[in-house]
Amino acid sequence: MKTVGVLLSGCGVYDGVEIHEAVLTLLALDKQGATILCMAPDMEQYHVVDHITGEATDQKRNVLIESARVARGEIQDLKTIAASQLDALVIPGGFGAAKNLTNFAIKGKDAEAHPEVSRIINEMADAGKPIGAICISPAVVTAVLKHRHPEMTIGNDYETAEAIEAMGGVHMPCTVDQIHVDEKNKLVTTPAYMLGPGIKDVALGIERLVEKILAIA
Amino acid sequence: MKTVGVLLSGCGVYDGVEIHEAVLTLLALDKQGATILCMAPDMEQYHVVDHITGEATDQKRNVLIESARVARGEIQDLKTIAASQLDALVIPGGFGAAKNLTNFAIKGKDAEAHPEVSRIINEMADAGKPIGAICISPAVVTAVLKHRHPEMTIGNDYETAEAIEAMGGVHMPCTVDQIHVDEKNKLVTTPAYMLGPGIKDVALGIERLVEKILAIA
Repeated sequence: MKTVGVLLSGCGVYDGVEIHEAVLTLLALDKQGATILCMAPDMEQYHVVDHITGEATDQKRNVLIESARVARGEIQDLKTIAASQLDALVIPGGFGAAKNLTNFAIKGKDAEAHPEVSRIINEMADAGKPIGAICISPAVVTAVLKHRHPEMTIGNDYETAEAIEAMGGVHMPCTVDQIHVDEKNKLVTTPAYMLGPGIKDVALGIERLVEKILAIA
Repeated sequence: MKTVGVLLSGCGVYDGVEIHEAVLTLLALDKQGATILCMAPDMEQYHVVDHITGEATDQKRNVLIESARVARGEIQDLKTIAASQLDALVIPGGFGAAKNLTNFAIKGKDAEAHPEVSRIINEMADAGKPIGAICISPAVVTAVLKHRHPEMTIGNDYETAEAIEAMGGVHMPCTVDQIHVDEKNKLVTTPAYMLGPGIKDVALGIERLVEKILAIA
């Protein structure tokens, strides 16, 4: 039985993890027989967004505590997890990846990752263990592994792809039901809600991504 | 194309909708070709629970605004939706059903539903349109339709089943991968996380529930 870490970034597409992508990842992992280990950094969210108006509010929320909603309470503080405990790592998307795990949504090509996010991704890469990155999360992996020039997809959003390439990544266009595999870096990516259009389409790419990272692991 | 309402109750199992059940409902509806209409009551949550400690906090959150996280912003205020717009209604579980949509978690057999929840369920029943209720949500339907003595399942939790029967419902034991169908009342139920054990098991019952309510609709 393989243990797969799922790195969450809050709870809600505009300020945290994209909930559908996270749940579809857990579903695919459970169906394919993996042991799931959810984790998130213990930090304040960049901000809290009202998901009806799209406006930021004056609330404060913690990424680890909000991520626990997606994980039904079964979650670990990222700083307590080492790559040695994992066979693979998956990072679902949502603005939480670009506002909490990194500041890519604010800094673009100059983005930096949270220190613990940087540590776990570097540990996985150094150990030759596969990473799956969904939606905008390939930007997180690139921000950390830019010196390895990882190949990845975020679909066909060329402005965002340009920022990722400026960091050192290599972007490949891809449809929502497919994955891109960087064999050298053991990085598997799928566009998910960078393309949509709906949950059933997003599910196809995520199922394939999970299948591939379990095959590599 | 059939339009199915999905009645949400927040965002997180301990104070809102059970996120996996809600997302699996959306997935099954999209895969089976339904048009989805998410809705929730515009009301303050009963309380806000830290999903790591399980303790209530002093925060305040709104059920409609938190539900929008699960719906990616595509959500309507329940009070604006009439049964005439829907072919079927599904109510995922989570404590939000028992704390926000009703007060079943506090009052047990003396539970009452939020007036708008009561209205939409009565309208659906009067129109002979099917309702799907997942996990603890059969308690919501029973609180409203007690005079119709609906037959339903919440799995095998006999204490909770007793409270539902005291309201006027008829409880039938059921496994997580199966559904119970009350043909007379067009009510379809499945235990989901009342039983667990995992997301792949819960998904089986929810897929069957969606298939059945679409067949009846």
